[in-house]
Amino acid sequence: MAEQVFDLLIINGVVVTTDETREVDIAVIGEKIAAVEDRGSFKNAQAKKIIDAEGGWVMPGGISNHMQVHLQEPQLFGKGSSCDTFETGTRSAICGGTTTIIAFAPQSKTENSLLDALARTYAKAEGTCYSDYSFHLLVGNPSEQALSEFPILRSKGISSLKIYMTYEALQLSDYQILDVLFEARRHRITTLIHAENNDLILWMTRKLEERNLLAPKYHATSHPPLAEIEATYRAICLSEFIDVPILLVHVSSPTAAETIRAAQTERNLPIYAETCPQYLFLTKHDLDKPGFEGARCVCSPPPRDSPADHAALWRGLSNGTFTILSSDHCPFLYDDTTTGKKTCITAQHPQGHFKYIPNGIPGVETRLPLILSALTTSPSLLPLQKFVQTTSTNPAKLYGLYPRKGALLPGGVSDADLVIWYPPPGLEPFELRNEMLHHACDYTPYEGKVVRQWARWTVLRGRVVWERDGVGLVGRKGEGVFVERGGSSLRGRVRGEEWEVRGF
Amino acid sequence: MAEQVFDLLIINGVVVTTDETREVDIAVIGEKIAAVEDRGSFKNAQAKKIIDAEGGWVMPGGISNHMQVHLQEPQLFGKGSSCDTFETGTRSAICGGTTTIIAFAPQSKTENSLLDALARTYAKAEGTCYSDYSFHLLVGNPSEQALSEFPILRSKGISSLKIYMTYEALQLSDYQILDVLFEARRHRITTLIHAENNDLILWMTRKLEERNLLAPKYHATSHPPLAEIEATYRAICLSEFIDVPILLVHVSSPTAAETIRAAQTERNLPIYAETCPQYLFLTKHDLDKPGFEGARCVCSPPPRDSPADHAALWRGLSNGTFTILSSDHCPFLYDDTTTGKKTCITAQHPQGHFKYIPNGIPGVETRLPLILSALTTSPSLLPLQKFVQTTSTNPAKLYGLYPRKGALLPGGVSDADLVIWYPPPGLEPFELRNEMLHHACDYTPYEGKVVRQWARWTVLRGRVVWERDGVGLVGRKGEGVFVERGGSSLRGRVRGEEWEVRGF
Amino acid sequence: MAEQVFDLLIINGVVVTTDETREVDIAVIGEKIAAVEDRGSFKNAQAKKIIDAEGGWVMPGGISNHMQVHLQEPQLFGKGSSCDTFETGTRSAICGGTTTIIAFAPQSKTENSLLDALARTYAKAEGTCYSDYSFHLLVGNPSEQALSEFPILRSKGISSLKIYMTYEALQLSDYQILDVLFEARRHRITTLIHAENNDLILWMTRKLEERNLLAPKYHATSHPPLAEIEATYRAICLSEFIDVPILLVHVSSPTAAETIRAAQTERNLPIYAETCPQYLFLTKHDLDKPGFEGARCVCSPPPRDSPADHAALWRGLSNGTFTILSSDHCPFLYDDTTTGKKTCITAQHPQGHFKYIPNGIPGVETRLPLILSALTTSPSLLPLQKFVQTTSTNPAKLYGLYPRKGALLPGGVSDADLVIWYPPPGLEPFELRNEMLHHACDYTPYEGKVVRQWARWTVLRGRVVWERDGVGLVGRKGEGVFVERGGSSLRGRVRGEEWEVRGF
Amino acid sequence: MAEQVFDLLIINGVVVTTDETREVDIAVIGEKIAAVEDRGSFKNAQAKKIIDAEGGWVMPGGISNHMQVHLQEPQLFGKGSSCDTFETGTRSAICGGTTTIIAFAPQSKTENSLLDALARTYAKAEGTCYSDYSFHLLVGNPSEQALSEFPILRSKGISSLKIYMTYEALQLSDYQILDVLFEARRHRITTLIHAENNDLILWMTRKLEERNLLAPKYHATSHPPLAEIEATYRAICLSEFIDVPILLVHVSSPTAAETIRAAQTERNLPIYAETCPQYLFLTKHDLDKPGFEGARCVCSPPPRDSPADHAALWRGLSNGTFTILSSDHCPFLYDDTTTGKKTCITAQHPQGHFKYIPNGIPGVETRLPLILSALTTSPSLLPLQKFVQTTSTNPAKLYGLYPRKGALLPGGVSDADLVIWYPPPGLEPFELRNEMLHHACDYTPYEGKVVRQWARWTVLRGRVVWERDGVGLVGRKGEGVFVERGGSSLRGRVRGEEWEVRGF
Repeated sequence: MAEQVFDLLIINGVVVTTDETREVDIAVIGEKIAAVEDRGSFKNAQAKKIIDAEGGWVMPGGISNHMQVHLQEPQLFGKGSSCDTFETGTRSAICGGTTTIIAFAPQSKTENSLLDALARTYAKAEGTCYSDYSFHLLVGNPSEQALSEFPILRSKGISSLKIYMTYEALQLSDYQILDVLFEARRHRITTLIHAENNDLILWMTRKLEERNLLAPKYHATSHPPLAEIEATYRAICLSEFIDVPILLVHVSSPTAAETIRAAQTERNLPIYAETCPQYLFLTKHDLDKPGFEGARCVCSPPPRDSPADHAALWRGLSNGTFTILSSDHCPFLYDDTTTGKKTCITAQHPQGHFKYIPNGIPGVETRLPLILSALTTSPSLLPLQKFVQTTSTNPAKLYGLYPRKGALLPGGVSDADLVIWYPPPGLEPFELRNEMLHHACDYTPYEGKVVRQWARWTVLRGRVVWERDGVGLVGRKGEGVFVERGGSSLRGRVRGEEWEVRGF
Repeated sequence: MAEQVFDLLIINGVVVTTDETREVDIAVIGEKIAAVEDRGSFKNAQAKKIIDAEGGWVMPGGISNHMQVHLQEPQLFGKGSSCDTFETGTRSAICGGTTTIIAFAPQSKTENSLLDALARTYAKAEGTCYSDYSFHLLVGNPSEQALSEFPILRSKGISSLKIYMTYEALQLSDYQILDVLFEARRHRITTLIHAENNDLILWMTRKLEERNLLAPKYHATSHPPLAEIEATYRAICLSEFIDVPILLVHVSSPTAAETIRAAQTERNLPIYAETCPQYLFLTKHDLDKPGFEGARCVCSPPPRDSPADHAALWRGLSNGTFTILSSDHCPFLYDDTTTGKKTCITAQHPQGHFKYIPNGIPGVETRLPLILSALTTSPSLLPLQKFVQTTSTNPAKLYGLYPRKGALLPGGVSDADLVIWYPPPGLEPFELRNEMLHHACDYTPYEGKVVRQWARWTVLRGRVVWERDGVGLVGRKGEGVFVERGGSSLRGRVRGEEWEVRGF
Repeated sequence: MAEQVFDLLIINGVVVTTDETREVDIAVIGEKIAAVEDRGSFKNAQAKKIIDAEGGWVMPGGISNHMQVHLQEPQLFGKGSSCDTFETGTRSAICGGTTTIIAFAPQSKTENSLLDALARTYAKAEGTCYSDYSFHLLVGNPSEQALSEFPILRSKGISSLKIYMTYEALQLSDYQILDVLFEARRHRITTLIHAENNDLILWMTRKLEERNLLAPKYHATSHPPLAEIEATYRAICLSEFIDVPILLVHVSSPTAAETIRAAQTERNLPIYAETCPQYLFLTKHDLDKPGFEGARCVCSPPPRDSPADHAALWRGLSNGTFTILSSDHCPFLYDDTTTGKKTCITAQHPQGHFKYIPNGIPGVETRLPLILSALTTSPSLLPLQKFVQTTSTNPAKLYGLYPRKGALLPGGVSDADLVIWYPPPGLEPFELRNEMLHHACDYTPYEGKVVRQWARWTVLRGRVVWERDGVGLVGRKGEGVFVERGGSSLRGRVRGEEWEVRGF
Repeated sequence: MAEQVFDLLIINGVVVTTDETREVDIAVIGEKIAAVEDRGSFKNAQAKKIIDAEGGWVMPGGISNHMQVHLQEPQLFGKGSSCDTFETGTRSAICGGTTTIIAFAPQSKTENSLLDALARTYAKAEGTCYSDYSFHLLVGNPSEQALSEFPILRSKGISSLKIYMTYEALQLSDYQILDVLFEARRHRITTLIHAENNDLILWMTRKLEERNLLAPKYHATSHPPLAEIEATYRAICLSEFIDVPILLVHVSSPTAAETIRAAQTERNLPIYAETCPQYLFLTKHDLDKPGFEGARCVCSPPPRDSPADHAALWRGLSNGTFTILSSDHCPFLYDDTTTGKKTCITAQHPQGHFKYIPNGIPGVETRLPLILSALTTSPSLLPLQKFVQTTSTNPAKLYGLYPRKGALLPGGVSDADLVIWYPPPGLEPFELRNEMLHHACDYTPYEGKVVRQWARWTVLRGRVVWERDGVGLVGRKGEGVFVERGGSSLRGRVRGEEWEVRGF
């Protein structure tokens, strides 16, 4: 292939994919991976641009499939407003090595149509994104109309939706969940479920209020592990009953993870699960930090008790319990947009009244660097190939993007979405500061955390969009495109079509 | 003790208790066990009455802790009326070797007080019972008043209550269940829980109705194992959250049983569980018997799929998953009391419309004989001592009757409640017929089943009340007394008083 | 019974048995429990002696079923000699609340007969014991003759034996173990198994020797948890294959405990297990204490890593994994009896060369006080009734002593073996010192441990033998008698006689 | 790429790989996959040969990693001689869709060197193979010399070895296994383990001989599931202790599979496992077939009890317990090569004396067709992508052949090894006959089994070697080449280098 002129060559990298780790060079033509060959193969090739990875890892670009970006959105839950737009959220993504995001398109309880919700969100995203993007429909009202729109969603390249078992503004009953899952099954749609038992949370919150225990740390008390454990098991049962794959999002409890593993193993069910960096690095004690810092670590489920919980979740990533490792990027502006005041923080509750602190933290930019930094120090936490699998390949497969995304298949199969890291052992350790980040948020819960890796280059469809040691952000607003998605290529329903005749 | 005149001697028996199997003789004075001594010890003693057990097993009288007898009751659930009164129900009990029953005192959703419910039920029982008796309060409305009455119940010798996660007329929300469990914990009350997911049942019922699938066998389809499995796990989580013992009643699903076992073992929780003969002998295919016979096997949860399910439940009895083996005696009159017609059976639904068949079957008299017959044929199913433990000793401990009931402790400690069986290998095999039974019900779901054991003598507080080979029933209406109960002597809450300070 | 003259009355006690906790008084006639009645029932009775328990717990005397006392024995394993005789060992027992011991009667690899071993050990015990006693045969050579003697052992009241999977001087091959278990099954003998993988220990020891790592703490390194975990699972498989109950002695590893629990639950096997105080209170770090103190904590298996291991074993006691809680009393004299030198401690190895330190520690006297002290501080570790069950009732049942021992059944059923403790919250906390103990050993591994309970009175067959606040030891050498034992009353083989026809 | 002249085009296929199922066309240049593109992409391309798959599945060629072919070998175990040579074995392979095999190079107990064994086996294979090939070293004597040769093996492209826990001629002690695993860890070699407890087998065999129970079916009785279950757990423990990946070969017992799964999940260990078609299709009852047919199903472990075992193993394939699905092709000539008599079949034992029947069956040619036929009828048994993963991709990864083998990566990455199947629903069902097969064996245990799939075309490095509907076998002896293998790309040791300092 020596006579070919390549648009981009990445040489001297250690290419890490889900399947293998190889010292190979990569050639890009246009937006696609053209060739992946032994080191030095392109020595005599012509190329418009050459990146020397200097022994650093080269991986498929991250896929961040769990993002809330809806600034102007009616306030669906919590009391603040999301502080990232599609523009700022995707900008933050590419600077952390993530090249595709899937954000939520929320339907409210009071509207019937999902297509309206999709159109509304699409309009916000279009022309503003730095990374490629797609949407999960967030089903707040599984009306007859909404259920009938599932095939239309599929025809528009949308193959996933999300539902809630908690948050009064969004919560579906078990009966409604069965309706959603039944239609999702028919149209091969993947359903994401936020699993927490709302009654248990409300009951515990009442007990705390009765005792005037309202500081941010009581958010963790009000959302005990058992709320998550119970709802996780319930979601699995409903999924098994309908015989349809689900994804349990942001799993934080080791016991919930064991429950999921048992479902995968003993019941052989297509249950997929996600965990997030906040459950690998933070604990509930972070909610008790001084000033506003505690409030800024409030998310649902909350970070759990101790490093023992972290260890159990790392094991779950390693042994396959967790299909994906996402950011659950959901940052809020604590300042009221009109008054400029932090509405949940008052004279009476200077740290914040836990019931009124919005639930969610930013994380799309820090996800990959934080994890890779941890692996630099403790490589036994997770094999690198598994890191690629859970942050890029599996999201691509689960959400119908594979092998265009999540892989580095040559011959034009995969998009040339890449992230290149610093050669081991990484950078001199430094402390993470919010000002290093590119979101619109005024904090990161990881402020001060010592890291030693960062995306050095990010490449989106063949074009360098982030160059940490050079000019930094070189991507352009609107460069990201909407990607149509097919069905999941992970294992789907188990019993074929026989549901229709079950017991009948 | 040779000079003592005993009221009753039981000689030549093989005495089987939870703790041991011994060839000993038993001496009774008044209503109490006076002595248990080596065979022949009372050879020269004087006795008013002597029973020669001829090598048969002698066991403490059975305790039937799960009975519905409330003929004149407002119809709480189902569409028929209970066909046994306290009189006929307890009469049936003693003829099957059961000397103490605990029946439900139901509070309806529309009344506030539990004490009213107790008084109303007490009035029905008083002076009519053949066996000793007590009550579980059935909490239909955990109002503030009801919750405040818990200590009064305890002072009246009532230490258990029951709640439902299904049946619209009785179902409590998770929030309400937490309220009940929290107060039950404070007053050391044992809570029985009927665990089935109501939404799942309703949803499946709708699907069946849409397809016009309404025969009795569809009752089993509409109450799938997952409805029980899910609710069982949820009940365990709620119990663990509050830190209070519960009893899961009538467990029918092997997976639910495994879930319970894991809670007992891995989480070390005081979760107790019950199974019943219908789940050891019947399958869902019994609901498809011709004529009305299928309808007569309808109960909730329904009998499960196959003998493999039976085997798993036997194992659960053997390994300690199940604390007790009860009858769940809940027989219904299919004939409308006023019209004389079977209301659930119409021209359109000659076998019965499954939604309108009352849920429940008779079983208090057949419980012990059926199980012992099975053990005669297959002794490896369950050790005899475990049989005594699950049908007599454990109910006594769990419900605060031990060692007055459920044991044969000499020296006046235990009541002389006894059941004496035929010597191994038992009777010539014969077919069970409803006319052999003493309830007020016109059928038994075990019609025609071959058995080879039956209570030969039943002794209630020192007095023979049933003599199968002689005059039969010799007990008298009103001879049974109300027994005050204390707290459970099985392991209770785990964390002492620390709940109050949990997270606070 | 007011006119009766009792030999002993114990009043104002809180009587704790396996089954219940009651405020009752106890009357003794001769060597037997005569009556157990409500507090004050004996107010007007005549009695030769009255003990006022002042609200303290009254329990059946402890049974210590795991003792090595064989001073003049050929050195079977390890390099030191046992420092307790039957006289000093049983003296120590009663001062700690233990009224019956079962010690080992060792057969060496070079002798054929078990009866010889029994006679030899019996001769040493006879006439010298302070407590009642029996023997387990320790089978070093399952010769044809030895196997043929099993029924004779049973006729002599011996119903248990012990075998080793490690220690070259004693280790049996899997093939030999199958031979032993097969005969044990036929004669309903309980087999105790010391389960550690000898190859793994030898291999690791070689690795340590190659690196000259020889201090006492390397004993723990050379006996890793996996050696125990593996052998435990293997023993369970061999037991399941033959279909015979076994007891896994001195389980120290939480994973081994889980393995046992799974066998009990999922495979429904009669696998019994024992743990010991050293695995609840010591860790491997105790082997690294200065001077000789580390060597004095050497036992096999060694204490494990951390308090997390302790917690898991406490849970195993609570949830029924462990049938019994024993002392594994096996103290050694570190001084050579002839030279007066500590043979394992040399100039080169001032702390002791781990390979030459005898494996075993004293504990018969401290067992019950240590545990009860822990329960005083942390009652949620173990319910008191479970404490009685695992230290007295279950050993009695497992080894065929029940209900003569291990219970407080009135009417002459149980021996009047009792231990009476101080009223809650116990004594002023004090530090345990070896000089407080009554064994012949010059140390205790619990030196300095703070305790707050001790046996206040010990009663052996109706006679006070220990009175801590008075004259102390009042028992007499030779007062203990040999107790004939029957078969286990715990669940035995599962499949009846069908082995003979299995697959044939 | 339209101007390129391809050597081979495969069009209209449904390409199934581990990662996805796509309707794409494949272009081959030389021995390599050049391009994989949307259907019709090569419409105008020039090609020397075009295969129209007509909608059939196109998969990477099978990898058969478990083969015994050593006709002229000293008889290592069993009493017969292997009937396939490298020539006939690999010929059989390609006719069933398998393009690479890994056979054993056996070292006997009496030789010190592994390199000798390798050279000897290599000489037999060289120039005779129809498929590509490599070797596992079979370590019969882990002498110091043998252990020192591990790095030389790696330099020769050998990265796996096999050891036995049974068969006296080959069995290693636990101590020896630890030696092997320790060196395997240092040199990143994968160790295959045949796990059965030899003592248990010998003991049971003695019992059977004592009863003169010697027919082939007693082979199953003599090799009970517990022999496999025990040894599997032991192998896992030894692997965990050393911290090194192992592969448990030919797992037949569902309980062993659960044990493996628990190790993967709860202990997070790199334990890999294999099952084989004989454990998915045969039961022990096949050993009782009339005539010689029973003897011909004898293998170790034996086929198990019932279809319930099959179902559990299918679940293990589906949920990831089993990494690979192999043939364990190990066929024997029952006729003595010199006398022409079947040595294990005598007048006294007309069906064969089970102890003298060689253990092993043929299967390399039937493996893929049998499984795919089953999936045609019951697609829920295993997703097609998982079929490819376990029969091709995972063997390639585990044994260091990926992505040259086991994948269809374009751009010259993967060899053009392909198997093309008939379009769904496959062929008209027909009965399998041994004469259809290409091995040197005079029987197949699947004689008469109805199948509906077969390899239609097999392509080895770009050349069609099998064309079922045309000339049949077109491959040539000697066409297969030795493939050098690297280390496994599956997860390896967990704790990095820290073993060296463990406890030291």
